[in-house]
Amino acid sequence: MLKQKSILEFSFGDETHLFLLITKIEKKTTKTNKEFLSLELRDISATISAKMWEGFEVFANSAKEGNIVKVDCKFDEFNGTPQLIINRIRVANQSDNVSHSDFLPRSQRNLDEMTKEWNQIVEEITNKHLKLLIQKIFDEQTKEKYFNVPAGKAWHHSYLNGLLEHTLEIIKFCKTACDIHPELNRDLLICGAILHDFGKTEELTYESNFDYTDKGKLIGHIVIAAMRIEEKSKEISGFSETLKNQLIHLVLSHQGKLEFASPVIPKMPEAIVLYHADEMSAKSNAYLSVVKNDRQGNSNWTNFVRLAETAIYIPPTEEN
Amino acid sequence: MLKQKSILEFSFGDETHLFLLITKIEKKTTKTNKEFLSLELRDISATISAKMWEGFEVFANSAKEGNIVKVDCKFDEFNGTPQLIINRIRVANQSDNVSHSDFLPRSQRNLDEMTKEWNQIVEEITNKHLKLLIQKIFDEQTKEKYFNVPAGKAWHHSYLNGLLEHTLEIIKFCKTACDIHPELNRDLLICGAILHDFGKTEELTYESNFDYTDKGKLIGHIVIAAMRIEEKSKEISGFSETLKNQLIHLVLSHQGKLEFASPVIPKMPEAIVLYHADEMSAKSNAYLSVVKNDRQGNSNWTNFVRLAETAIYIPPTEEN
Amino acid sequence: MLKQKSILEFSFGDETHLFLLITKIEKKTTKTNKEFLSLELRDISATISAKMWEGFEVFANSAKEGNIVKVDCKFDEFNGTPQLIINRIRVANQSDNVSHSDFLPRSQRNLDEMTKEWNQIVEEITNKHLKLLIQKIFDEQTKEKYFNVPAGKAWHHSYLNGLLEHTLEIIKFCKTACDIHPELNRDLLICGAILHDFGKTEELTYESNFDYTDKGKLIGHIVIAAMRIEEKSKEISGFSETLKNQLIHLVLSHQGKLEFASPVIPKMPEAIVLYHADEMSAKSNAYLSVVKNDRQGNSNWTNFVRLAETAIYIPPTEEN
Amino acid sequence: MLKQKSILEFSFGDETHLFLLITKIEKKTTKTNKEFLSLELRDISATISAKMWEGFEVFANSAKEGNIVKVDCKFDEFNGTPQLIINRIRVANQSDNVSHSDFLPRSQRNLDEMTKEWNQIVEEITNKHLKLLIQKIFDEQTKEKYFNVPAGKAWHHSYLNGLLEHTLEIIKFCKTACDIHPELNRDLLICGAILHDFGKTEELTYESNFDYTDKGKLIGHIVIAAMRIEEKSKEISGFSETLKNQLIHLVLSHQGKLEFASPVIPKMPEAIVLYHADEMSAKSNAYLSVVKNDRQGNSNWTNFVRLAETAIYIPPTEEN
Amino acid sequence: MLKQKSILEFSFGDETHLFLLITKIEKKTTKTNKEFLSLELRDISATISAKMWEGFEVFANSAKEGNIVKVDCKFDEFNGTPQLIINRIRVANQSDNVSHSDFLPRSQRNLDEMTKEWNQIVEEITNKHLKLLIQKIFDEQTKEKYFNVPAGKAWHHSYLNGLLEHTLEIIKFCKTACDIHPELNRDLLICGAILHDFGKTEELTYESNFDYTDKGKLIGHIVIAAMRIEEKSKEISGFSETLKNQLIHLVLSHQGKLEFASPVIPKMPEAIVLYHADEMSAKSNAYLSVVKNDRQGNSNWTNFVRLAETAIYIPPTEEN
Amino acid sequence: MLKQKSILEFSFGDETHLFLLITKIEKKTTKTNKEFLSLELRDISATISAKMWEGFEVFANSAKEGNIVKVDCKFDEFNGTPQLIINRIRVANQSDNVSHSDFLPRSQRNLDEMTKEWNQIVEEITNKHLKLLIQKIFDEQTKEKYFNVPAGKAWHHSYLNGLLEHTLEIIKFCKTACDIHPELNRDLLICGAILHDFGKTEELTYESNFDYTDKGKLIGHIVIAAMRIEEKSKEISGFSETLKNQLIHLVLSHQGKLEFASPVIPKMPEAIVLYHADEMSAKSNAYLSVVKNDRQGNSNWTNFVRLAETAIYIPPTEEN
Repeated sequence: MLKQKSILEFSFGDETHLFLLITKIEKKTTKTNKEFLSLELRDISATISAKMWEGFEVFANSAKEGNIVKVDCKFDEFNGTPQLIINRIRVANQSDNVSHSDFLPRSQRNLDEMTKEWNQIVEEITNKHLKLLIQKIFDEQTKEKYFNVPAGKAWHHSYLNGLLEHTLEIIKFCKTACDIHPELNRDLLICGAILHDFGKTEELTYESNFDYTDKGKLIGHIVIAAMRIEEKSKEISGFSETLKNQLIHLVLSHQGKLEFASPVIPKMPEAIVLYHADEMSAKSNAYLSVVKNDRQGNSNWTNFVRLAETAIYIPPTEEN
Repeated sequence: MLKQKSILEFSFGDETHLFLLITKIEKKTTKTNKEFLSLELRDISATISAKMWEGFEVFANSAKEGNIVKVDCKFDEFNGTPQLIINRIRVANQSDNVSHSDFLPRSQRNLDEMTKEWNQIVEEITNKHLKLLIQKIFDEQTKEKYFNVPAGKAWHHSYLNGLLEHTLEIIKFCKTACDIHPELNRDLLICGAILHDFGKTEELTYESNFDYTDKGKLIGHIVIAAMRIEEKSKEISGFSETLKNQLIHLVLSHQGKLEFASPVIPKMPEAIVLYHADEMSAKSNAYLSVVKNDRQGNSNWTNFVRLAETAIYIPPTEEN
Repeated sequence: MLKQKSILEFSFGDETHLFLLITKIEKKTTKTNKEFLSLELRDISATISAKMWEGFEVFANSAKEGNIVKVDCKFDEFNGTPQLIINRIRVANQSDNVSHSDFLPRSQRNLDEMTKEWNQIVEEITNKHLKLLIQKIFDEQTKEKYFNVPAGKAWHHSYLNGLLEHTLEIIKFCKTACDIHPELNRDLLICGAILHDFGKTEELTYESNFDYTDKGKLIGHIVIAAMRIEEKSKEISGFSETLKNQLIHLVLSHQGKLEFASPVIPKMPEAIVLYHADEMSAKSNAYLSVVKNDRQGNSNWTNFVRLAETAIYIPPTEEN
Repeated sequence: MLKQKSILEFSFGDETHLFLLITKIEKKTTKTNKEFLSLELRDISATISAKMWEGFEVFANSAKEGNIVKVDCKFDEFNGTPQLIINRIRVANQSDNVSHSDFLPRSQRNLDEMTKEWNQIVEEITNKHLKLLIQKIFDEQTKEKYFNVPAGKAWHHSYLNGLLEHTLEIIKFCKTACDIHPELNRDLLICGAILHDFGKTEELTYESNFDYTDKGKLIGHIVIAAMRIEEKSKEISGFSETLKNQLIHLVLSHQGKLEFASPVIPKMPEAIVLYHADEMSAKSNAYLSVVKNDRQGNSNWTNFVRLAETAIYIPPTEEN
Repeated sequence: MLKQKSILEFSFGDETHLFLLITKIEKKTTKTNKEFLSLELRDISATISAKMWEGFEVFANSAKEGNIVKVDCKFDEFNGTPQLIINRIRVANQSDNVSHSDFLPRSQRNLDEMTKEWNQIVEEITNKHLKLLIQKIFDEQTKEKYFNVPAGKAWHHSYLNGLLEHTLEIIKFCKTACDIHPELNRDLLICGAILHDFGKTEELTYESNFDYTDKGKLIGHIVIAAMRIEEKSKEISGFSETLKNQLIHLVLSHQGKLEFASPVIPKMPEAIVLYHADEMSAKSNAYLSVVKNDRQGNSNWTNFVRLAETAIYIPPTEEN
Repeated sequence: MLKQKSILEFSFGDETHLFLLITKIEKKTTKTNKEFLSLELRDISATISAKMWEGFEVFANSAKEGNIVKVDCKFDEFNGTPQLIINRIRVANQSDNVSHSDFLPRSQRNLDEMTKEWNQIVEEITNKHLKLLIQKIFDEQTKEKYFNVPAGKAWHHSYLNGLLEHTLEIIKFCKTACDIHPELNRDLLICGAILHDFGKTEELTYESNFDYTDKGKLIGHIVIAAMRIEEKSKEISGFSETLKNQLIHLVLSHQGKLEFASPVIPKMPEAIVLYHADEMSAKSNAYLSVVKNDRQGNSNWTNFVRLAETAIYIPPTEEN
């Protein structure tokens, strides 16, 4: 794991060497017709603009978004915002021993532990058709994407392994619900939980930045997952049409309301449980992460949170 | 085509023979424990309740919803509503020369003419991948369903061949739009129009009554169509992923807004054109059919139309 | 516990003796100026209208809503709806050995077990001020009401002991959330859960029918609970103002949105968890109880559920 | 037509002569009490701020918004935004041979052609009262305004002759609808289309900038048109009250919903057709113009479009 | 004023003579092909259905909705609802000394007193153009309609003279506002109040029943009033365009929000005052009249009031 | 009362002495690690940023938000916004003869006059329990807060004594309503008006700035007032439960709709009157104050007003 000072810790005028990840790269021209290289770079904590005025031509021809680079730079500012002036730049090579995950936030939970938990859950599915479906969908390559992808761009679990962490939380709430209501179809509910956000593996990129793919914007993760279930269940002999429709229904309805982009609303007890388990996991993660990261000055409140439609209260700690 | 007096034209006390279609059938018991057969029957214009008190046991064991029957009956009433008392009943046989379409409303447009129009439209698609996709999706059996199914249960084009009539209208509006804006992708738009309500072939039944299937209620015609495009395009070598995503996008977004059950909103000029062409066809058909069929008494207005949120005005005809 | 045939099981013309609970009672006059006694009566499964034409004067002067009566009656019908014709009626006495709970639905969970669970939860509160507050609010009389009252009039947990059952479910979900997120203030969250619907003890009556009190309609259970916390916390020396505000906030915001009658929206992680735990418990209970009790004919669907804005799907049982 | 380099093509420091249109003009004082002239100027492609520090007194006394001026200027910048420093300025005179339309965007369609089309449409109206009404409303002066005015300030057809272009498109869709549904009142629908946005001739200014008039903001184009129809139809002997009410209804309801500022919703088939034809023309123009003019960087998307609530997708051109 | 027993006070089987007003009249045929006359009749308190089986032919040829008739009838019932069986019927004549206002509810306030109050208010307008406009609009015939018409069909001030009573109340609130804020344009505000619902004189009929006219449904009272102001102000030399626009703005915006059918929202202090004064008068009248007339049984509540979205509380009178 | 030039009247470079109120104070560090004192200061008309670079250590240790200070300063600017550079600063002392109200806006109405009016209103309450309740709630300290507090942070009556001015206006409208409708419970309505915004005394701070307290954000003024009424009415022997519930209902419902944060909607005529009287006072004050203070340039319009969803029209004054 890369050890270097965060770009938030440098001061105006500092000169240093840093490994950074390119999130945008473009050649531009000043109003006075001078060409320069404009970049957006990130380390694990933040993003910063950068300019390179000389000697960038060769580099610019081959470098692209998603490359890790080593820069020799100076901290400057432009219109009151910090920016880097780059003297020298090169793409990182194997001997630099850095990887993308040195530049992107990652779940605090241990990945091996989460993987084991997830495998255990799949193991416990008793309906053989459902279990087989999960195994067919999750080939090695898909599993790797699914275990890595964040659950979203910015709101909740928006870090590497975030979808996995989120899914495991949902399953905990679903299991509590099944303990209370044994009449729920546990296998169906667990599989619905595993697959509900599966489409995010194609909806999001997380190589250099967390962002939406064109396919994600045009189709959305909900329908992507439905199409995959349809496709893979057809390969399983004896997979009941009725069961397939229920599973697709759980995935389609898991955002709970049409205006939240679900094309059908929950029409089964398992579907309504899945919707609320998803909400519970998403909102508690989101609110707690705002509390941790976004206090407004030294007040008892965070900054205004658009998706919560409020600032969040942080009680003074001296309470007993 | 069956020729018989409409059930709306009989009077209390009339006795007659009629061919009718069973839409519901159930054995029931009176409060005094007498068993009887309760049916709902329809001819092409209306639906009527019926009761049979004696000699129905053998018939009841084999008959089911969707059967055409010949009844020997008397017009009675119950709580102010007309009902039939059945003396004798039997399932129609081949020599009776009746078919389901004698009992279900049908488009006023000629089916052959519409079929020809539709074939012509497919013929004119210039993108070979798109044309091939349409041909693959529309095998003979699918085409038959698609040409027969109504466009909906009750609101617009809710009669046999209704989806076809509706689709042809949409395409007319889309062509007008392409004439105005040559930069629109005509092939994409036409294929989007052809497929936009394709899923209704699985969402609706129209054998004995127009109603929703379980699959229709759990998944909906929009996602059904998307899954079919995904499946069939994979069978076409060289079918571009980008093109497929656009076509699926047109289908998914054709209801225009999330709250109308589209999981994505229109994000392409072709998608917004398709949405408005669909609206234009649906609403003009719906309003005109209310005007034709639902005048309130002798007023200048129809009855209140829930989906229009108003009654519709019928101007006095003496105007010049 | 009273053992008698349900009023749903009798047929037209049956004569019998029954214990029933009065939910409405009024003297009325026919159009021809004849006085009669009009009642609404219930047993544990249903409600029925009743008329008494003779000899009701003495009884009518003393009887009132909420009385248990023994009736000598005949099953009749009026406008197609069953009703009772009463020949003789008297208020039940002690030797009849019947009580209100023979006529009102009750949680399927064992009350003693639930009480023990609840006591255990209170026992585990570690903040001494919060624990003391709970103890002060729940004097014996209040506890009895709280343990008996339904959680609502009709939607979820709408039976005796329903509020208790509902609260215990919420706490289970809250505990799951605390296991996932140790940074949540567990004591605050548990006390919020215990008190969130406390006001229902004054908002609802459940003596003869489940209904709203005038106070319930004018003020609502949310503000009733807030006022009680304010009052009782003032009696506890050293109870921090900040803590009190947080607890009241959890109660006020637990319906999650202004349009659901919360005067403030959740502004703390604990508040958002409580809101979703409440939703999860309420909705899963409501959907499952519709599935159990409200199948539409022999279809795979329940009747339309207004609060769910849909019918609920009941999958055919032969699925594997 | 004026030929000069666009103000978007100059660089910092360039000095030049330009004809520009004044969109705002005001004398201001710096914090150090120095007087200067502050202007906003436009050419056909963009708007730019300008300052003049010396020798503006005489000019400032007579010049006003809407004047075309010739400036001797230098390209400077202020807070990162380009601005002009003016050395000399004078109002353009006849010999300069420039006119307002050199500074305001204009429809791509040929005006003569559109005029002919419009005249033809009026010619084809068969109801003599309606035809006479159109002729009365469109005296020469009104016609000139109507043919020139944009259809809006910024969203769709927001250029000179825009209302005319928009109206002709709507009529095309209306005619398609009449072909499908001969029972529509074609004359009424065409006149409704012609007059639906007529009030924009008083709602908007387009002399120096496209903006709303006070009357436009206080009354709106919908009611302005209704008042004109009321006024002019009274001058036509035998113009039926019923027909007038229908025509006014079409104008009033053409925005389709109360929340879109129509004081009544469509209550006639012709009214619903007009509403959707208007939407079709407006939205397809708006989306296509965003695609043409507002790509975000080198991505496959335009910038976010507030009125569409999304960015618009621009498919990569290599698709076949 | 007519003195006769209310139709609500008769019992089944009673025979009597009554003067009643025809609100609907139609010849119908029974299922057994017998012709009869079907009527809806009203006295001042209620409406009742009526049938006449014999000897109605001559009467039916001339009688129509809005006629006052004298009937020789018997109180019967049909499907549980009271109806009249008519033996003889004739149109009332002058010597019967009855008039429409004997059959329609009327304001409790004295009409002369209200007229005087209204005249006084007009007298006090100081702006001579505005005063002249009011005088021009209110010719004798118009004034009579305006003084008679109800303010609505059912919700508030829905009785003869209701619009006048409502307008006078609004003006009282406006005057209070002017006392608090002398900067308000009092003349403008008063004239806005006088004219805000003026269009109801054409939107509503109140001859035989309170109902909407076709014009009312197609155009609405708001635009009707605007058109009249436009027309009449043109006849006044020197009437400022700016002032006219403000007055029309007040009328157009007086329902406060687009979704309440105002085509513009209030954009002046006077407009916002008028909107709230209108609401205050309408809602207090509506709520108090429900309290007076619509108690639910012997509860402390009225029946549910759809437009208030609640039942209204009627406190027990023993309170001090 | 303090007499000094407004901070809006100084120019860049001016040096002066001023008394100002601290609204924010914080030590900060430049990017080059230099410590400085950052302040936000206000006089009665505006707020300004300030920096002090030297000699602030002692002062910074004791000074805090809400202090009045005397500063020796120079008018500078930063990023185009004026700011002060402070040379010397000290906390004001008694001999300076300045007070907070020299720095915060205040109602234009005379406080003594308003106090007298308020006392008179309380005097006129005839229900002895209600009058006693008002007297108990308004002890001297509470009365002082209530008379001083603004009615809000920014929208209407947002100045010292604003709540009092607002309350007196509401009562005027309520009295007009009582004159029209003598059946309204005048005492209840007046007390509801007095107490409706009472909670703002705890919801808002107004010492140095108008802002929300933590309690205000977590609980809100509506519930704060309800809790106080509950508490104080319990101290009054014989205070009827029914009356108390009504009074609390008026307070809780006075914002009229759930989405405006009232936990119950108005369910009494008095409640609906109070809601509309509150709206009338708030909106007329807000619109008129925008007209007075926020004209956009030299146009006939104010700037856009977010809460009114429009700009407000200011008619040209030459109208007659």
